[in-house]
Amino acid sequence: MMSYKAPLRDIRFVLFELMGADELAALPGYEDFTRDLIDPILEEAAKICEEVLFPLNRSGDEEGCTLENGVVRTPKGFREAYQTYCEGGWPSLACDPEFGGQGAPHMLGVMIEEMMCSANLSFGLYPGLTQGAYVCLSGYGSDELKRTYLPKMVEGVWSGTMCLTEPHCGTDLGLLRTRAEPEADGSYRLSGSKMFISAGEHDLTDNIIHLVLARLPDAPKGVKGISLFLCPKYLVHEDGSLGARNGVSCGSIEHKMGIKASATCVMNFDGATAFLIGEPHKGLRAMFAMMNAERLAVGVQGLGVAEASYQGAAAYARERLQGRSLSGAKDPEKPADPIIVHPDVRRMLLTQRAYAEGCRALAVLAAKQLDLSRHSDAAVRRDAEDFVALVTPIVKALLTDLGTECANLGMQIMGGHGYIRENGMEQYARDARIAQIYEGTNGVQALDLVGRKLPAHAGRLLRSFFHPVSAYIEANSGDKQLAEFVQPLGKAFQRLQQATAQVARAGMRDPDEAGAAASEYLRLFGLTALAYLWTRMAEVSFSEAQKSEDEKFYAAKIATARFYMQRVLPQTSGLFSSIMAGGKTMMAFDEAAF
Amino acid sequence: MMSYKAPLRDIRFVLFELMGADELAALPGYEDFTRDLIDPILEEAAKICEEVLFPLNRSGDEEGCTLENGVVRTPKGFREAYQTYCEGGWPSLACDPEFGGQGAPHMLGVMIEEMMCSANLSFGLYPGLTQGAYVCLSGYGSDELKRTYLPKMVEGVWSGTMCLTEPHCGTDLGLLRTRAEPEADGSYRLSGSKMFISAGEHDLTDNIIHLVLARLPDAPKGVKGISLFLCPKYLVHEDGSLGARNGVSCGSIEHKMGIKASATCVMNFDGATAFLIGEPHKGLRAMFAMMNAERLAVGVQGLGVAEASYQGAAAYARERLQGRSLSGAKDPEKPADPIIVHPDVRRMLLTQRAYAEGCRALAVLAAKQLDLSRHSDAAVRRDAEDFVALVTPIVKALLTDLGTECANLGMQIMGGHGYIRENGMEQYARDARIAQIYEGTNGVQALDLVGRKLPAHAGRLLRSFFHPVSAYIEANSGDKQLAEFVQPLGKAFQRLQQATAQVARAGMRDPDEAGAAASEYLRLFGLTALAYLWTRMAEVSFSEAQKSEDEKFYAAKIATARFYMQRVLPQTSGLFSSIMAGGKTMMAFDEAAF
Repeated sequence: MMSYKAPLRDIRFVLFELMGADELAALPGYEDFTRDLIDPILEEAAKICEEVLFPLNRSGDEEGCTLENGVVRTPKGFREAYQTYCEGGWPSLACDPEFGGQGAPHMLGVMIEEMMCSANLSFGLYPGLTQGAYVCLSGYGSDELKRTYLPKMVEGVWSGTMCLTEPHCGTDLGLLRTRAEPEADGSYRLSGSKMFISAGEHDLTDNIIHLVLARLPDAPKGVKGISLFLCPKYLVHEDGSLGARNGVSCGSIEHKMGIKASATCVMNFDGATAFLIGEPHKGLRAMFAMMNAERLAVGVQGLGVAEASYQGAAAYARERLQGRSLSGAKDPEKPADPIIVHPDVRRMLLTQRAYAEGCRALAVLAAKQLDLSRHSDAAVRRDAEDFVALVTPIVKALLTDLGTECANLGMQIMGGHGYIRENGMEQYARDARIAQIYEGTNGVQALDLVGRKLPAHAGRLLRSFFHPVSAYIEANSGDKQLAEFVQPLGKAFQRLQQATAQVARAGMRDPDEAGAAASEYLRLFGLTALAYLWTRMAEVSFSEAQKSEDEKFYAAKIATARFYMQRVLPQTSGLFSSIMAGGKTMMAFDEAAF
Repeated sequence: MMSYKAPLRDIRFVLFELMGADELAALPGYEDFTRDLIDPILEEAAKICEEVLFPLNRSGDEEGCTLENGVVRTPKGFREAYQTYCEGGWPSLACDPEFGGQGAPHMLGVMIEEMMCSANLSFGLYPGLTQGAYVCLSGYGSDELKRTYLPKMVEGVWSGTMCLTEPHCGTDLGLLRTRAEPEADGSYRLSGSKMFISAGEHDLTDNIIHLVLARLPDAPKGVKGISLFLCPKYLVHEDGSLGARNGVSCGSIEHKMGIKASATCVMNFDGATAFLIGEPHKGLRAMFAMMNAERLAVGVQGLGVAEASYQGAAAYARERLQGRSLSGAKDPEKPADPIIVHPDVRRMLLTQRAYAEGCRALAVLAAKQLDLSRHSDAAVRRDAEDFVALVTPIVKALLTDLGTECANLGMQIMGGHGYIRENGMEQYARDARIAQIYEGTNGVQALDLVGRKLPAHAGRLLRSFFHPVSAYIEANSGDKQLAEFVQPLGKAFQRLQQATAQVARAGMRDPDEAGAAASEYLRLFGLTALAYLWTRMAEVSFSEAQKSEDEKFYAAKIATARFYMQRVLPQTSGLFSSIMAGGKTMMAFDEAAF
């Protein structure tokens, strides 16, 4: 019942009109990525998402993955779709040309990821994990490892995983027990069991390259004794051909709330041959390179679901005839009005819309800064790196929280029909839910923000956001047309500044105070960031509307900005009061009384 | 992995210490229901919920219901559990002694419903629907119908349904098409198809009594032409024995997000024999008697899940060792601290707790007023009726919204383990989700509140809540011990009063303005009601703590009240601003642009 059309018009608006993606080609390494190249790439991506991946979304959820004799089968059609995906060159898009990649900017990559997540979140996880492993291996692996493994991963014929979690340790990696024994030939033998391994075993690729955290025999305790290893499913001969099956196998697959077409595996390492990535005991650093990229990508999963659920709900609300407008029949010829006439239905649709479009702008802004941090000179670079480090936990947590909220609004708009599996909306709610949990729960993201990012370099990271926003507000404070946006933005920003000071001050005295504020602070930060971006989107829309024939597009943009300011942003006042109340009520509560 | 213990201590606190259930026995008809009787009933109910119903919750979800050759089978163990349930006399608890019932007060009934919904929401729906049909039939049926059908329904050997929804009409019953043709013998023949019929067909009872909305041949168009019929699965002989199979059958069962052990059926009526309930064309009135009772019951479903998910999350947070307290190791002997040391985990647990306990108090208060409205003199009665009418949509929507929020907080606390089906937490999130939708979506509840309840009798219903709260605030405004509760309550109450005036004023001018405010207004109302009840709970706890040895219980109660005031209630400031911003941004949005 759901349908999905890639929101290309809006993607182009964000990329080119709002974020100046035209200037990408001026950056060294991105010379080819002019609009002439980006536009057709977006269109091709839209096509495969709409025509190949989306039609497998429902069937994949119903069928799920199966494990038989150690072999995991993905749902019907996934193998063929993955082949089409590889033939289109999509796995190599964001990779380094040195290993066969196309070196595309993140700004482009993130919009393609969004479309994939809208169309089929479970499918997107397979290449998504490979991309994460690529980032880690290309950053920290030896030349030999890179030469041996990266080209096939870039091509998509091999896939990757990240094996961190064990039954007794998820967030706290210091507890992990998987062991690595050095061999005479310089390789290692891995023993242990990992769980919650996405794409740990499947039938889409010829080989699976596991990146595994484990301890060397002489490892110090805790997180300082963790090393990273590469452990292929099949060993690879010097000529690149596949050799013997390695001692790694899938023990079971999880039965989950959602993302059922994505295989979530228990992986057993029984003396499996593995190779050290980077230095001994420095595995977490390498893994975090991957993790940060993954966290942005997981945020985009929330965005993808927000968009898809909005589209489904809007279509339903336009078609479903039920009751009459409160202010008198709008369509008296028909037996009832479409439910889109109801203000409460519009409230839900506009909330979805304001979130999806706002989150898109934030995701692209983060990607732009990532591009700048990699492809520009030192002055720009540091600021861009600061910004990316600061907003990574916000993008991850805010976008996934809002993704789930949007999917649930979509269900609410569809009423009972939203609860029925075949109609597709409830799947969005089940699929989106995991994104708030994996790659560090959203609570962990909030702690990362207040505990690491805020205090880092005496608050320097904050300036990468606070300075431009503060300058923007000042520059536009006299603009009459923008006043309705700049004023509430200014108010929210003031709250954010005050809350920041409070969290920093109280957290210095007592770290539990920072922890108690963390989740609400992250949301306050995120909603303020969206207010900034909505103001800029309104500004661009006012000016573009005058030169363009696409008036309605810009009018809708401005109207959505207004809705966001008046009806969504006020949340920040409650968040602010909660934060300012401090954490005493939580910490004083008697543990035995829970 | 989940466990469930009925929260008897807290239930007794709410019933006896907060709401004075001891005084029930003073009401005519409730003479037997002294504490001596109520206490053992609660204990017996706890036992069946913990030992019989809860153990079938996970397996029922996995197995679901099946339809084969028109026969619906409930999951393994449900038949036996239902028999145990009937043998315990539970179906008859709240029913009239005239038909074999025990005539128990709603205050007691609602707490037993909560336990059932915590233990097994799907199971609870079968007797829940029978109870709804009982209310409707006992209120509007002819003596003959009542004599024929009620005793067996009260006994539980027959069950009931409510057949309203059709594929093209849910909220808008005016569109319904099912037809009823009068027969010479005074009966009717029903033809049409109904969908989303909970317990429409199953194997728990010998007969199923459908209450069906349909149109007579001479029916006026719209909602004024709807009549209500009783249509049994098996016709009933004069001596009460079962006769021929009637022309009603289950066409299919839905595959849903949750409540999988509850059969949701498409029911086809092919010239089925039926009997008119009440007057022709007045079916909606009778159905709404049932619906109002159901709406309170659905709210209690949300409460049940809130409590169950809290218990599961608290147990996990105490046991799961992961990381260290931000303020230094709390359990240095162990490899890590339990995650309950983290302020963000405590924030989530206390939110669940504050919601579950606050909602319990609200549900019991509504039930008390329902008892008063039925069993006291005219002066008390009208006020009580007003209160019940006013809070029914609030109980339905607020408690179910918070039920889903609590289940999702529970998942978040459990991290990846919360997303795995066998661990049981994600089922709570899936099961709870329907309660926000059925018996009128929560958006419809909000419209009922602002569109019907607020303006009714020139605002008279409102006074049944506003007067006592306002009097309570005034009476306690000088109380130093209570100041930390009364002050924020007063602030929230002021916001609610201002918002009420605004909604009434703007809604008079333009009904869409009331509609645009409805959902946020309902939540503002609900959170303020919880603040009132939390203040009263703190007051009772202060005074009881001095006479009792159960100090820790009261200390936890006061601490939770503090948390609610400081960290949850501030939401009302954002809701207030959203409401005051009006609905223009929604209604002005171009429909074609969605």
